[in-house]
Amino acid sequence: MALLVQKFGGTSVGEPDRIRAVADHVARTVRHGDQVVVVVSAMGKETDGLLRLAADVSSTLPGREMDMLITAGERKAMALMCMALHDRGVPADSFTGSQAGFLTDTTHQNAKILAVRPDRIRAALDAGRVPVVGGSQGVSTENDVTFLGRGGSDTTAVALAHALAADACELYTDVTGVFTTDPRLVPTARRMAKVSFDELLEMTATGCPKPAMRSVEYARTHGVRLHVRSAFTWQEGTWVDEEDPDMEQAIISAVTHDTSEAKMTISGVPDQPGVAARVFRELADLEVNVDMIVQNVSDKGVTDISFTVPHSDLDRAVAAGETIAAEIGALGVTSDPSIARISVIGAGMRSNPGVAATMFETLAACGVNIQMISTSSIRVSCVVAEEEAEEAVIALHESFGLSEA
Amino acid sequence: MALLVQKFGGTSVGEPDRIRAVADHVARTVRHGDQVVVVVSAMGKETDGLLRLAADVSSTLPGREMDMLITAGERKAMALMCMALHDRGVPADSFTGSQAGFLTDTTHQNAKILAVRPDRIRAALDAGRVPVVGGSQGVSTENDVTFLGRGGSDTTAVALAHALAADACELYTDVTGVFTTDPRLVPTARRMAKVSFDELLEMTATGCPKPAMRSVEYARTHGVRLHVRSAFTWQEGTWVDEEDPDMEQAIISAVTHDTSEAKMTISGVPDQPGVAARVFRELADLEVNVDMIVQNVSDKGVTDISFTVPHSDLDRAVAAGETIAAEIGALGVTSDPSIARISVIGAGMRSNPGVAATMFETLAACGVNIQMISTSSIRVSCVVAEEEAEEAVIALHESFGLSEA
Repeated sequence: MALLVQKFGGTSVGEPDRIRAVADHVARTVRHGDQVVVVVSAMGKETDGLLRLAADVSSTLPGREMDMLITAGERKAMALMCMALHDRGVPADSFTGSQAGFLTDTTHQNAKILAVRPDRIRAALDAGRVPVVGGSQGVSTENDVTFLGRGGSDTTAVALAHALAADACELYTDVTGVFTTDPRLVPTARRMAKVSFDELLEMTATGCPKPAMRSVEYARTHGVRLHVRSAFTWQEGTWVDEEDPDMEQAIISAVTHDTSEAKMTISGVPDQPGVAARVFRELADLEVNVDMIVQNVSDKGVTDISFTVPHSDLDRAVAAGETIAAEIGALGVTSDPSIARISVIGAGMRSNPGVAATMFETLAACGVNIQMISTSSIRVSCVVAEEEAEEAVIALHESFGLSEA
Repeated sequence: MALLVQKFGGTSVGEPDRIRAVADHVARTVRHGDQVVVVVSAMGKETDGLLRLAADVSSTLPGREMDMLITAGERKAMALMCMALHDRGVPADSFTGSQAGFLTDTTHQNAKILAVRPDRIRAALDAGRVPVVGGSQGVSTENDVTFLGRGGSDTTAVALAHALAADACELYTDVTGVFTTDPRLVPTARRMAKVSFDELLEMTATGCPKPAMRSVEYARTHGVRLHVRSAFTWQEGTWVDEEDPDMEQAIISAVTHDTSEAKMTISGVPDQPGVAARVFRELADLEVNVDMIVQNVSDKGVTDISFTVPHSDLDRAVAAGETIAAEIGALGVTSDPSIARISVIGAGMRSNPGVAATMFETLAACGVNIQMISTSSIRVSCVVAEEEAEEAVIALHESFGLSEA
């Protein structure tokens, strides 16, 4: 008998017939002899609808009340899921984040988990019942309802799996697993049977949309085995686990792309200690979410600093950058919203030199110009023009031998 | 400075613009120097929508989960109300029934309040904030979320007003107060400036739809002054209070009617001790909600027992009645779904004989036949044919001098 945490995302429970299908699956798992804890997100576009309502009555959107509002979404889904399970003869009880023991800090809309004390969940399991927990919810140290943020249900599931010492955490979603690249761009993209925490973290950081990066970090830190799979096909998906040191690693596991960012360059920056710190402190204070940062070697005492920011932050970042540039005596600020970040990721890269060279050769062969480069021990990323992204991904997926046999 | 509990029903908060209008009103009350605790129902038809969703995924509808589901409705309304108050510069915090200190029994979907411990509500008031409480909610002795039932928000408001020793409990609804009769039937119906608890209880028991009878009982028991008024006009409504012993009572205060019930008669019942008890115990065990019961004097050792039941219970009641009739040697069972119960209510009736006679004369004058009669110390009710109900109500409202001057 295994103890499984099964998390179902918004699309997986978006309609009554989907809820019934998920209940069938949970009931099958229970009949198979396993213990199950279910975590559900809000149904489909429910959270978006609640956000629209809030915007309609308020321009201030106080965090405490936003969390009270948004958590109504999972509450509906978890109660309906329990009812559907009851209909299938499976005793089930729903639990809010608070009831499930999720203690958080007081950062509304983006609360951090401080502790998970799943006493009621354990009691329900011991009584032969299926606990159904509202995802992304908790109660703060001030006894207020908190929301862990969009995509927080994955984190709820992983944290619960860790606290309960579950055998695995299954993340059911609307894709059948983690792919070697975006299957919408590359029809030959292959579902990976297995991926390491480190690789998946690099992938989610560079454009792979699921599972939520925060949940992968939590799983890596606490060693929770993840199984990313589809709630529509029910077939085996992708296992996420520690790297297997005895196994030969594929050199490259995946190619990702991200078109959600823009590029900004402050040029002619005096090459003095503290200048970069000043630039990025000011941007951080403006809550501009800076991602990839590249600084070229100094040329005659001046250098260029390039970085990427989300499209939504670009205007603020450019305005701030121009002020800073004037103050520090830089030449000026340029920006380009039409970029894409293309990354190749693979744990085998560590022991196989030449990956970067192969990547650059592949891009050159399709005439794609590289604007920025950054690397980690298991990733190489290039910023290219947005309109060349698709061609670049297809070529890289092919040249690294990732396509379906 | 007064402490007021203001309760807003579903229609009063049914749309974003209604929520903003209510927030304006609460803000005005606060600026006037009063302390306010707000109680809200779910928005408009929200609860009906949740019930439809439940019926769509489940035929068993487990009570614990139904309560978890339905309480999502008030949760949305209370969070949105707080946001709208924040926008008006009024600090406000929402509280679930549990957070507001409503401890209930474990009867899901119809939980009874065991205690109200509004510590967090008092703390919010002391901090100069407006607490906004979800109506009809509580937490059970087993730490599960409970729902007090449809219309339970009125009870939440009254119980909170009692626990906080508030100066008054204002029930805002979609009518402008309590009327001498249904204004839809009788255009000359008059809004009552004042009505006693006893009279309003008899009225709500015999067809006056608002406020919920249970909340009036709670208010009478604990001496909570109610003010029933409109959230659309904001004008003074009807005050509900103890009878004023120094004041001359109107003989008749109101005429009510109720067409939600059917009549059933078991005829030729042997007139022996225990027979009536047996009939109504069996019906009670079937959860048939028997209302008005009339038994005629015995005639040659047999009698007729007539009573009313809700339309929805009639088929079950007739089937059970026929079984019982056969067992006790009664003649048979007849039933009629097309009846109306017409009542005249007034505390002044106690010291003024002749009210029943006037009522019967009035009905006779319009050719309305009386099928059943029952009385209390401040009420006379007659069952008549449903199609004659409107004419009867109009005639009684006129003959007892209730019409607008």
